[in-house]
Amino acid sequence: MSDYQSMDKNALESELKNLKAEYEDYKAQGLKLNMARGVPSTAQLELSLPMLDILKSGSDCLSVSGADCRNYGILDGIDEAKELFAQMLGVKPENVFIGGNSSLNMMFDTIACFSENGIGGEDPWLLQGKIKFLCPAPGYDRHFGVTGFFKNIEMITIPMTENGPDMDMVEKYVEDPTVKGIWCVPKYSNPDGITYSDETVKRFAALKPAAKDFRIMWDNAYCIHDLTDTPDTLLNLYDECLKNGNEDLPIMFCSTSKITFPGSGVAALAASKNNLDVLKSRYKFQTIGYDKLNMLRHIRFFNNYEGVVAHMQKHKAILAPKFELVINKLTEELGDKNIASWHKPNGGYFVSVNVLNGCAKKVVALCKEAGINLTGAGATYPYGIDPNDSNIRIAPSFPPLDELAKALDIFCLCTKIAAAEKLLDK
Amino acid sequence: MSDYQSMDKNALESELKNLKAEYEDYKAQGLKLNMARGVPSTAQLELSLPMLDILKSGSDCLSVSGADCRNYGILDGIDEAKELFAQMLGVKPENVFIGGNSSLNMMFDTIACFSENGIGGEDPWLLQGKIKFLCPAPGYDRHFGVTGFFKNIEMITIPMTENGPDMDMVEKYVEDPTVKGIWCVPKYSNPDGITYSDETVKRFAALKPAAKDFRIMWDNAYCIHDLTDTPDTLLNLYDECLKNGNEDLPIMFCSTSKITFPGSGVAALAASKNNLDVLKSRYKFQTIGYDKLNMLRHIRFFNNYEGVVAHMQKHKAILAPKFELVINKLTEELGDKNIASWHKPNGGYFVSVNVLNGCAKKVVALCKEAGINLTGAGATYPYGIDPNDSNIRIAPSFPPLDELAKALDIFCLCTKIAAAEKLLDK
Repeated sequence: MSDYQSMDKNALESELKNLKAEYEDYKAQGLKLNMARGVPSTAQLELSLPMLDILKSGSDCLSVSGADCRNYGILDGIDEAKELFAQMLGVKPENVFIGGNSSLNMMFDTIACFSENGIGGEDPWLLQGKIKFLCPAPGYDRHFGVTGFFKNIEMITIPMTENGPDMDMVEKYVEDPTVKGIWCVPKYSNPDGITYSDETVKRFAALKPAAKDFRIMWDNAYCIHDLTDTPDTLLNLYDECLKNGNEDLPIMFCSTSKITFPGSGVAALAASKNNLDVLKSRYKFQTIGYDKLNMLRHIRFFNNYEGVVAHMQKHKAILAPKFELVINKLTEELGDKNIASWHKPNGGYFVSVNVLNGCAKKVVALCKEAGINLTGAGATYPYGIDPNDSNIRIAPSFPPLDELAKALDIFCLCTKIAAAEKLLDK
Repeated sequence: MSDYQSMDKNALESELKNLKAEYEDYKAQGLKLNMARGVPSTAQLELSLPMLDILKSGSDCLSVSGADCRNYGILDGIDEAKELFAQMLGVKPENVFIGGNSSLNMMFDTIACFSENGIGGEDPWLLQGKIKFLCPAPGYDRHFGVTGFFKNIEMITIPMTENGPDMDMVEKYVEDPTVKGIWCVPKYSNPDGITYSDETVKRFAALKPAAKDFRIMWDNAYCIHDLTDTPDTLLNLYDECLKNGNEDLPIMFCSTSKITFPGSGVAALAASKNNLDVLKSRYKFQTIGYDKLNMLRHIRFFNNYEGVVAHMQKHKAILAPKFELVINKLTEELGDKNIASWHKPNGGYFVSVNVLNGCAKKVVALCKEAGINLTGAGATYPYGIDPNDSNIRIAPSFPPLDELAKALDIFCLCTKIAAAEKLLDK
């Protein structure tokens, strides 16, 4: 049995009958498996266990500058945290602002700041009427959630290519002065696992947007989250922007959520002095300072950037077999069926599968009925609407390998059922 | 030497000459003492030291519901934290939302939410043009900073009385539909240390504002921060609001910043279901959840609300002698001079001193020249402008007793110099 699209009707009817019988067997098992979100597994959490109680005494709580991190103060974070994140983000420490436990929160606050305060000397976005934001898709649903919260922002879908967002379209759109920004996950993109090519990064750095308040939201969530020994490399956007006199273009983000503890990590952003000045002009009223003890826990646990990189090898050892299993299952079950395509990522947290057009919602619904929880179909597009109803995001990090294998078997089965029914026009 | 205002010119000239000689002696000592902000002392930080490493194992990180607090999730906080803060705030757990390390941040986000999203079914504040916020003063400078950040908000000063804000004025102002809210520190107010009377609380609860989107920002920062064995009691605003069908009026805040670690405490807000629904409609896009491990650290350290109350006795033992010293010094040095007045607080973090009109800036400048850092004169008023140039906030918590004694000597001296010069019209 191979290419569904070349099978005659009778053969496909017969195939569908067999698939459905198999599906009923799975349903009878009453499974409950979750591949919905990029959540680290318990085994991954255990890797950072020594960090929990690494601070024990009052003297443990002193920063290099001598500040007692238990007390108030230091709006932009302790120096040693700035140094560490500067290396992760590829900038200088003076360009870094350390936040709380969530880079998403920092992205939200950045959009809120530009909405309330304005950026680049322009009026607050909220007072500019309808504005537009570019959203490479498939993309990260929570990014679209942030811009969707601000009702004056219209989200424009930019197709993803194997080199990153379609830059011809991006360059065309930024000629429109109501276009104010773009969301990017430049390395191991969510969900495709694509790393932007050098050319893509250079074209971003060379953008000349009509809007002086256009900003690139550069969410480098998976900057060191490799899955293979031949990881992708991402060109340094900030350096490229400097070459073009465009250092005010990017606001860059990362966090330790998928390095230490997802709920209790440390997040950071990096930006030019001009941008930092505006962001700080809001932060200084918003808070007295973020959790410096948690910054210190990370510093004591890792010692330095090399410590972080070494730690990521341990995550890789846990995650790589899960991704291999996903790719193997997809290849075995769907590789010759001509009903689905996917990209094998070298890092990140997802495998993005494109099923036959018009089938994604059905596949997700079938999976749900059989006890497999997936990210909702459409979630990877602005407004939750995938125009082709084709993209499904698989998040293999949380389940143990045996559960993951079963979940993938069912996913492939549901993909085949939906495809067969579609081809039979049922 | 007693009442300056009754002294003849020669006597006052002679007094001023002596004061200035004394002042020069102090200046020559090159002191550097800080009474600027309500910062807990190192001795107070040590009280919570066992909390630092109270979580050691993976199983320590499980919430009562079985959630692994190291991982993502639980937007509004773990149940046991809601229960604890419900008791601090005097509400039910379902009315509580647990945040990050800063109640100021939650207040800022609340104003931002109402500005971007609206509340009570009304348009977003930012789209309503000029609106007004009532600011009882002297008050907390960071409150005024938050509303000052939103440029469409005009701040209106409401005088403080010994029973709280002037409620006649508040009741009059809320007839104006452009008046959208009021800042309150209802117990041991910042800086006066005044607790709102039962009648004041009842009048707040019975307000019938013209604006459906009027809200009371009830910052109960010092709810259990007593300094004496005869502490003030504050009527429960939420209960009173319920009696009036007014439960949508208040948004209530507190934190453990001045209970455990100021930089690494836990903050919470309480509000009606209607208000929480609106706040959560923003929070759910802003973050995946706040630091649950830090919530757990607090739960494990205190066990329950009684544990928190017992812990506050230890703070009291450290703080009460400092406040006694301040009041004693003021009484000794200024009590019979008829040039300053103050209120002896039963709790909180400040002593508020009113010097002769037109003298506050001068006193703060003289202190600074002698090495004593005070909150800037005017900071306790909207826009940093004290119309009488009279109010000075003293924060005695951080310096050790001997330094505090010297700082108070100098403060009293500077108050006398400024008063004498003013009375001599110099």
